[in-house]
Amino acid sequence: MELLKNKIIAQGIAINEKVLKVDSFLNHQVDVPLMQEVGLEFAKYFRDQGITRVMTIESSGICPAAFTALALGVPLVIMKKQLSCIHCEELLSTPVHSFTKNKDYTLTLSPNYIQYGDRVLIIDDFLANGEAALGACRLVEAAKATVSGIGIVIEKSFQPGRTLLQEKGYQLYSLARISKLGHGVIEFA
Amino acid sequence: MELLKNKIIAQGIAINEKVLKVDSFLNHQVDVPLMQEVGLEFAKYFRDQGITRVMTIESSGICPAAFTALALGVPLVIMKKQLSCIHCEELLSTPVHSFTKNKDYTLTLSPNYIQYGDRVLIIDDFLANGEAALGACRLVEAAKATVSGIGIVIEKSFQPGRTLLQEKGYQLYSLARISKLGHGVIEFA
Repeated sequence: MELLKNKIIAQGIAINEKVLKVDSFLNHQVDVPLMQEVGLEFAKYFRDQGITRVMTIESSGICPAAFTALALGVPLVIMKKQLSCIHCEELLSTPVHSFTKNKDYTLTLSPNYIQYGDRVLIIDDFLANGEAALGACRLVEAAKATVSGIGIVIEKSFQPGRTLLQEKGYQLYSLARISKLGHGVIEFA
Repeated sequence: MELLKNKIIAQGIAINEKVLKVDSFLNHQVDVPLMQEVGLEFAKYFRDQGITRVMTIESSGICPAAFTALALGVPLVIMKKQLSCIHCEELLSTPVHSFTKNKDYTLTLSPNYIQYGDRVLIIDDFLANGEAALGACRLVEAAKATVSGIGIVIEKSFQPGRTLLQEKGYQLYSLARISKLGHGVIEFA
């Protein structure tokens, strides 16, 4: 997606060989019209997959996922990393390791918001090691629903996430694929 | 906002005298077209305030705030409750107590995404005790910017948040004001 790649070139900051900072338009400040375009692009790509629900993981995936759900005309469901004490019903849950934050968290989903037969499109901001996406897939499949696609805004293609997801047969679409990062270096695949 | 009130009546669940569960359209599953209407309503109400930036607190406020920012044509900034180790620059921060989760967290904002002279509209999903909104105001004012409005999706008017914000002179607009909650009881102000 050229619009996105141009934004990454203009505003992305490669902190080191693994970390790309896109705080100015995706993670902290958000370029909402760009996220709307991102949502339209995902909806266009997955429009023939019979998607019934878009899911994401809080919180940087919410904005692109919302515009994807709006364009597809289906509900959005936000998987939670941390639930408040008012959620007392039985939840689907799975452990996930965050390499970025170097800690584990529990990803949760209420069984009220996924149904047998659902065809789920998972949207997330980054794909690196694939831990979060694989965790989201486990929750969808625990509910006997189908992962019908995974849409990623920025993929770090030099990390193992893509391979792990493809080995499991998931249809993966990344809008920007980065092959190399370094101090001041951002190269696309 | 009638559309929102009708949704609360249809799908909101009063767990007890303090807790309203709106997981089916706001906090976990999200009714995105409704959030779009919410954003349009906030934008309409605050359109003469010269808003330069919409801010929210992760994560349930992101969706309504994104549509508000889109309608006003200004950037969205998401204040963070917890930052990953890749954010190393100096941050604005303030402690906030969450009564819902019964714990304290640090709310943070990068000074890169707020400027002297900014006129900020703060959007959040709930107003109860006002702790989160007051914390957001402190960060905006620490950057010598102005809080030009606070937009709340659901206000629990029987809790002190509204009074605390109004005492400080903030312009507050809540789309649904709930005066009473109880088992099976939801009354609007």
